[in-house]
Amino acid sequence: MNASESEAGAESVWTAALLVIGDEILSGRTQDKNVAQVATWLNEQGIRLAEVRVVPDDSGRIGEALNALRARYDYLFTTGGIGPTHDDITVDAIAAALEVPVVIHPDARAILEDHYRDRPGGLNEARLRMARVPEGAALIPNLSSGAPGIKIGNIYVMAGVPHIAASMLEALSGTLEGGRPVVSVTVGARAPESEVADLLRETEAAHAGVSIGSYPFFKDGRYGANFVIRSEDPAEAQACANVLSDGLRAAGFEPVDGGI
Amino acid sequence: MNASESEAGAESVWTAALLVIGDEILSGRTQDKNVAQVATWLNEQGIRLAEVRVVPDDSGRIGEALNALRARYDYLFTTGGIGPTHDDITVDAIAAALEVPVVIHPDARAILEDHYRDRPGGLNEARLRMARVPEGAALIPNLSSGAPGIKIGNIYVMAGVPHIAASMLEALSGTLEGGRPVVSVTVGARAPESEVADLLRETEAAHAGVSIGSYPFFKDGRYGANFVIRSEDPAEAQACANVLSDGLRAAGFEPVDGGI
Repeated sequence: MNASESEAGAESVWTAALLVIGDEILSGRTQDKNVAQVATWLNEQGIRLAEVRVVPDDSGRIGEALNALRARYDYLFTTGGIGPTHDDITVDAIAAALEVPVVIHPDARAILEDHYRDRPGGLNEARLRMARVPEGAALIPNLSSGAPGIKIGNIYVMAGVPHIAASMLEALSGTLEGGRPVVSVTVGARAPESEVADLLRETEAAHAGVSIGSYPFFKDGRYGANFVIRSEDPAEAQACANVLSDGLRAAGFEPVDGGI
Repeated sequence: MNASESEAGAESVWTAALLVIGDEILSGRTQDKNVAQVATWLNEQGIRLAEVRVVPDDSGRIGEALNALRARYDYLFTTGGIGPTHDDITVDAIAAALEVPVVIHPDARAILEDHYRDRPGGLNEARLRMARVPEGAALIPNLSSGAPGIKIGNIYVMAGVPHIAASMLEALSGTLEGGRPVVSVTVGARAPESEVADLLRETEAAHAGVSIGSYPFFKDGRYGANFVIRSEDPAEAQACANVLSDGLRAAGFEPVDGGI
């Protein structure tokens, strides 16, 4: 593990990347849901999602992104391409990138034998594909549909179907080394963000280790924005939120705790 | 322009990448909607979305991804970070990556002066930030909120707010050189995909230039899957769909045109 030292000094910042694999995302057919759920889950583990890439079902493109991301971040998660059909090539692509053979994992085979015992067709050849792993891999339990996920090195290989990916994340909860979770405090106001831009910049600058994001909206015929204050230090985030609220009030905009 | 020759020979395949810029996507706070809408729009223009990256509001990380993607694909689209606040750093990051200065675009200033003339605060310093562009850039009309997008070289810089990005795409419709749009035909069946995996693989192999994606679901207590047949040749896609439907029927699964 190579968690990098944060700018603050002693605290380590743990980072992860997510590699989303699938033609259906790049064609616009399917709206991705995994970025948001993996991001949220990582944050709870004290790990920062630092980059996402989406690549097509192409072995070379998967391998290239995989090798770039696994070297750069502490953890790499992938979603998609581990089902039973011909377009599910993630396992082969990862094995090729890692230069290891693909093998049948005996525990995965046992799980699938059990899962398909009483179903039409049984454990046929297509289903047995889901027991294939890069040599040296361990399994990630899948509480929702039998076929397990895969862990190899710092790579966590998950299903693309969001509720199955969620069940794999659930199984991994608390098992990855991480740092302090980033907490956020949100303050909303019926202020056009362009009228409080100076206030935001100055408030952020006055609080070390705190970032303020500004997210404008137009709702009920009026402009407004939510300001999200993020920090690894809950007290500092709240202190910054209080200063921002005072500033908004002084500028004539009533702050709303928790956002609008 | 460097559209690569497709495997088919004479036809060019035009490609694009999308760079999504924003801490709010990587924190899980905001569910991205731009990947799907840019993908769908590109497909209508005859351009293939070949890669997506999501990076934080960090100038170095934006520049690195920008330079990698603009060199590799015919077009590069970005979303996010072009508003009036301190966390909107996309223009500066792109200018730095292209090694050009940031300048005020006179037409953008005129648009903003007009837009903010009768609003509280007028064209203040924060709002004037939205007239800043990398030197040499042209504008992309924004039909929904005043501040324009930016075109420089093969890079198209758009807002992160999905309905504003949509209005910029609308303004660009038909203006980019592209190839033949990819069409898709969908066939659904109440078939567990693992029971028709061989049929899918063989049907795809028998139709050159056609890809079949398999998207399983569990609905109303039963398994099923939709099979999406994609090709630049509408007749070939339909022919492949017909063969697949026949094969599904022969296997005891009633095909449903258009999917389930």
